[in-house]
Amino acid sequence: MHDCACQSLRIQQGKLELLDQRLLPHEEHWIDADTVPAMTTAIQGLAVRGAPAIGVAAALCLGRLAERACPLSEFRHQAAALRAARPTAVNLARLVDAICARVDADGDLAAVPALAERFYAEDRALCRALGRHGAALVTPGAQLLTHCNTGGLATVGWGTAFAVFRQAQADGKRIHVWVDETRPLLQGARLTAWELARAGIDHTVICDNMAASLMAAGRVDAVFLGADRIAMNGDTANKVGTYALAVACRHHAIPFYVVAPRTTLDPDCPDGAGIPIEMRDPAEVRGYAGAAGAIAWADAQSPVFNPAFDVTPADLISGWVLDTGVCDHASVRAGALHELARTA
Amino acid sequence: MHDCACQSLRIQQGKLELLDQRLLPHEEHWIDADTVPAMTTAIQGLAVRGAPAIGVAAALCLGRLAERACPLSEFRHQAAALRAARPTAVNLARLVDAICARVDADGDLAAVPALAERFYAEDRALCRALGRHGAALVTPGAQLLTHCNTGGLATVGWGTAFAVFRQAQADGKRIHVWVDETRPLLQGARLTAWELARAGIDHTVICDNMAASLMAAGRVDAVFLGADRIAMNGDTANKVGTYALAVACRHHAIPFYVVAPRTTLDPDCPDGAGIPIEMRDPAEVRGYAGAAGAIAWADAQSPVFNPAFDVTPADLISGWVLDTGVCDHASVRAGALHELARTA
Repeated sequence: MHDCACQSLRIQQGKLELLDQRLLPHEEHWIDADTVPAMTTAIQGLAVRGAPAIGVAAALCLGRLAERACPLSEFRHQAAALRAARPTAVNLARLVDAICARVDADGDLAAVPALAERFYAEDRALCRALGRHGAALVTPGAQLLTHCNTGGLATVGWGTAFAVFRQAQADGKRIHVWVDETRPLLQGARLTAWELARAGIDHTVICDNMAASLMAAGRVDAVFLGADRIAMNGDTANKVGTYALAVACRHHAIPFYVVAPRTTLDPDCPDGAGIPIEMRDPAEVRGYAGAAGAIAWADAQSPVFNPAFDVTPADLISGWVLDTGVCDHASVRAGALHELARTA
Repeated sequence: MHDCACQSLRIQQGKLELLDQRLLPHEEHWIDADTVPAMTTAIQGLAVRGAPAIGVAAALCLGRLAERACPLSEFRHQAAALRAARPTAVNLARLVDAICARVDADGDLAAVPALAERFYAEDRALCRALGRHGAALVTPGAQLLTHCNTGGLATVGWGTAFAVFRQAQADGKRIHVWVDETRPLLQGARLTAWELARAGIDHTVICDNMAASLMAAGRVDAVFLGADRIAMNGDTANKVGTYALAVACRHHAIPFYVVAPRTTLDPDCPDGAGIPIEMRDPAEVRGYAGAAGAIAWADAQSPVFNPAFDVTPADLISGWVLDTGVCDHASVRAGALHELARTA
């Protein structure tokens, strides 16, 4: 397979490695993920995160395995193990299934490396398309705001909402990005700020509860953030805290954009009421644990509510920036998302 | 002086002690603050916090000093040192000044212990009045939400907004309180949750960015929180994050109440534009440091915006719960706050 290098992974001298995201922003350490057991461990241990990055990393790992002339039955066995590494990561299952279907059809592994490389290239092209469509909405000198991490660490390209910042910066628009720290897991403070610094984009980290007063002060021109799932009426599930930003944007008449590939559209989900919300470990709210250390500032007995996501109703969203272009309310009402989900 | 006992301080067998708030919620440790040097150290080291608690603690400490038949010149010297312990704590200066004025008028210290005890009793009565007026707005079974810490730790009584919860609970209303963790210093998760647990009030800690989606789900009936300064038109400065809650309450048509004694009214401040906002150490946002340990999850170079307060405009506030009763918009427009500030 060809050498490649992006924020989340790289193939150098034929060896696949992952940037260990658990150690960011303090340390940039690349770990060996060139075998299926190593990749499985890395995925399960969250060294790599973000559905697109996980999916492509797994595909490239199977590409490497195919290059080593692995027996067919052994290949299928290892692919199944890799697919099971994170049961809820939809891209992981989809790309592994596509590779296995091709192997079944061909009866050999010859096509696997090139197929994996195609998935890598497709994700990068998707990110660029999102960036182009989103950046068209950004005026020079704009102050933008984002939540969680949607960048090169979550994909193998420029990211989703993050690609908008990359493209606007590349277009010479000299933007400034306010970064919500994103409690409880602090992906904004840890990962997005690190990516913005590396990309040379002017930025400032804030606590989530400061965004609304920045809006009141006229210091936010637009919000761009990602999506975990988009229902057919445009209702959008994303990292908890997204809805509060949408409400604050409405109050201050600030545009609020969701940026996501068409694969985020869920044709089986008519509206936000049907989106299940994962409840997570109360310990995440009672403190913080990561590579930098672990601390609990709240009482271990304190009752906690810790939803991973919230749902923003379509009427608070100014536009859906998809890889095919920006959808507005009229097109969503006319059923555009059904159509787009079919072509994803 | 008489024995006394409240959440923030106590006099037992003639000795004045403070609950060391830095160790909460993990440890309840009382420290000796019976001398002016010990009290000064405790105030400067934030073992005691909250303007009313600091003021009364200092007054009681001077009462203890007076009981020990301290020479008049030495008393004045120590009072001046105590007054300077925290320059921005307005109650501290006010109560120490009142004691010194009395000493000057009398030419001796005889009245000081009783005067200090009067300040203690007055703060407790103030809290009870706030609680009574606020609790009248609470319906049985209500789900309330609060921000930061406004309880017995910040006063020598039931607190300000917290007194509303105490009174509602005492009235048998069986409330539930959602507690914003209150980034960056986490007073909600550390202190308010601890106080609610001690008071036997049903509660749940959330990240600040989760409040709006609870409102959308119909799980918040009203918000009660404190104030650092109230301008004459009703605009209110309070812990950062307050404004975002007010905006979310407006969007969901949920009542939003500010609870504070009249001493919080600033007659020299016509509106919120005149309230200076303290900017604090970026390290507070890049991580957390406290008795439980210190951790930095963000890069030490990450640019950070860290205002201690924000300003909520009067039109987003449903009512101002003062120790004299609840002010509505009509009375604020008619100049009621000017009148009340004069009598504070």
